[in-house]
Amino acid sequence: MPDALTRDVRERFYQAPFVRDLGIELLEVAPGRARSALTLTDRLRQQDGYAHAGVVATLADHTGGASGWTCVGPDATVLSAEFKIQLLRPVMGPRLTCEAQVLKAGRTLIFSEATVFEEDGKPVAKLTMTMAVVARNR
Amino acid sequence: MPDALTRDVRERFYQAPFVRDLGIELLEVAPGRARSALTLTDRLRQQDGYAHAGVVATLADHTGGASGWTCVGPDATVLSAEFKIQLLRPVMGPRLTCEAQVLKAGRTLIFSEATVFEEDGKPVAKLTMTMAVVARNR
Amino acid sequence: MPDALTRDVRERFYQAPFVRDLGIELLEVAPGRARSALTLTDRLRQQDGYAHAGVVATLADHTGGASGWTCVGPDATVLSAEFKIQLLRPVMGPRLTCEAQVLKAGRTLIFSEATVFEEDGKPVAKLTMTMAVVARNR
Amino acid sequence: MPDALTRDVRERFYQAPFVRDLGIELLEVAPGRARSALTLTDRLRQQDGYAHAGVVATLADHTGGASGWTCVGPDATVLSAEFKIQLLRPVMGPRLTCEAQVLKAGRTLIFSEATVFEEDGKPVAKLTMTMAVVARNR
Repeated sequence: MPDALTRDVRERFYQAPFVRDLGIELLEVAPGRARSALTLTDRLRQQDGYAHAGVVATLADHTGGASGWTCVGPDATVLSAEFKIQLLRPVMGPRLTCEAQVLKAGRTLIFSEATVFEEDGKPVAKLTMTMAVVARNR
Repeated sequence: MPDALTRDVRERFYQAPFVRDLGIELLEVAPGRARSALTLTDRLRQQDGYAHAGVVATLADHTGGASGWTCVGPDATVLSAEFKIQLLRPVMGPRLTCEAQVLKAGRTLIFSEATVFEEDGKPVAKLTMTMAVVARNR
Repeated sequence: MPDALTRDVRERFYQAPFVRDLGIELLEVAPGRARSALTLTDRLRQQDGYAHAGVVATLADHTGGASGWTCVGPDATVLSAEFKIQLLRPVMGPRLTCEAQVLKAGRTLIFSEATVFEEDGKPVAKLTMTMAVVARNR
Repeated sequence: MPDALTRDVRERFYQAPFVRDLGIELLEVAPGRARSALTLTDRLRQQDGYAHAGVVATLADHTGGASGWTCVGPDATVLSAEFKIQLLRPVMGPRLTCEAQVLKAGRTLIFSEATVFEEDGKPVAKLTMTMAVVARNR
């Protein structure tokens, strides 16, 4: 993947204030793929001490979005039209990683999937998503 | 609904640090139903200025969870097994409300749906979820 | 809704061989809405005697598609990009009805939901779907 | 996997009248996995000549169910609580294959995913599902 595209995806990734707020890190980008990580702090948990489902979903959705960005030009962007997440196990962390890959990139729709892992390599969540390709406002 | 149950759901709702962190408010609880609100601050947005999908998902998932709590006793709780969210429109806010209702409450599974609205009453997101009923650790 | 549109949706509905094969009937069409029915015969069941999840899904998906057709012109059609279905209760039938409505009709995407009911009026399944608006081949 | 378990899953698979009616074939079973195939006949298509989404969903749901059966004892069975399917491309066939695998098998819930392929090896649909483990009626 050209360096310019990697830089562009990296830039888009961190432009989302909510992603910086949670502390999500982009580890790697390749055509149709993205890998990220998140260290769970106490404020990201739910009432039983597990990662809030919304935190896990944000990690997987945003990483899925990054996989989508690798498939569009500089004048387009992607918006999540829908996603579904399965929470396979209660997520304790503290260190989560996420791997996303494009299942199919069309002209107007991109389908991706993402898996979230605990440090021991066990999958803790699985997301599938549909993104709409739209013009980028700059 | 008995006041004790309302108090219990309210207490559970705010016990989640992530929900307090985002500023989600529980407006109303009734048997099989819950209503909440969230004022979008800048840190909750994504790269284009819209509410991050993960924020909208957290609002809907947690409110759906509250609808589920109204169907279980004090010794049980619910965990999201999965949810799917459709983002019907880009969400600007700043004031979002969410209404959740139980579709079916079984002994081990509870199905709920939740809709997120902008101030003008337009639905901006629709979530359906499946919760597992599990023993509560206290 | 103009009679021509009703006729057009009705025609499209029954053009699907699989829908005729299962015996799905279109009961009613209105702007953004469709209602259908299906009488379960033995060949539509699964190993425990319930309606197969795939039958219930076909009923809900196709009725959702009909709700989508009410929102596009004669030169366009809709294709299911994705759907999710929750099977709230084992479905015995024999008479099922389905109500679908559009949640949001955009230029390229239409979001709908559909609920399947038993004769006693109890909801047995809930589907949400995303359709892509595409050119119609005729 | 013991031969008895393979035989048991194979038996359950074909006990569903709807699956025999569509002509779905179970090709292979292994712990946490199942592989199946379907030859599309004209009656299984929709109005544009593609496989009906409900047919593709039935193939993927039932194969996912088979993956779940490999994880439960002879006195239990699985029921689909929900599934979501993404239709990545219009499906022409005529020969489809499906591979399902368990993502997590718990005591009361089993999560699986399934992918449907055309003959050229391209994925045409992706399903994720949640099954409830229940007592088997015999």
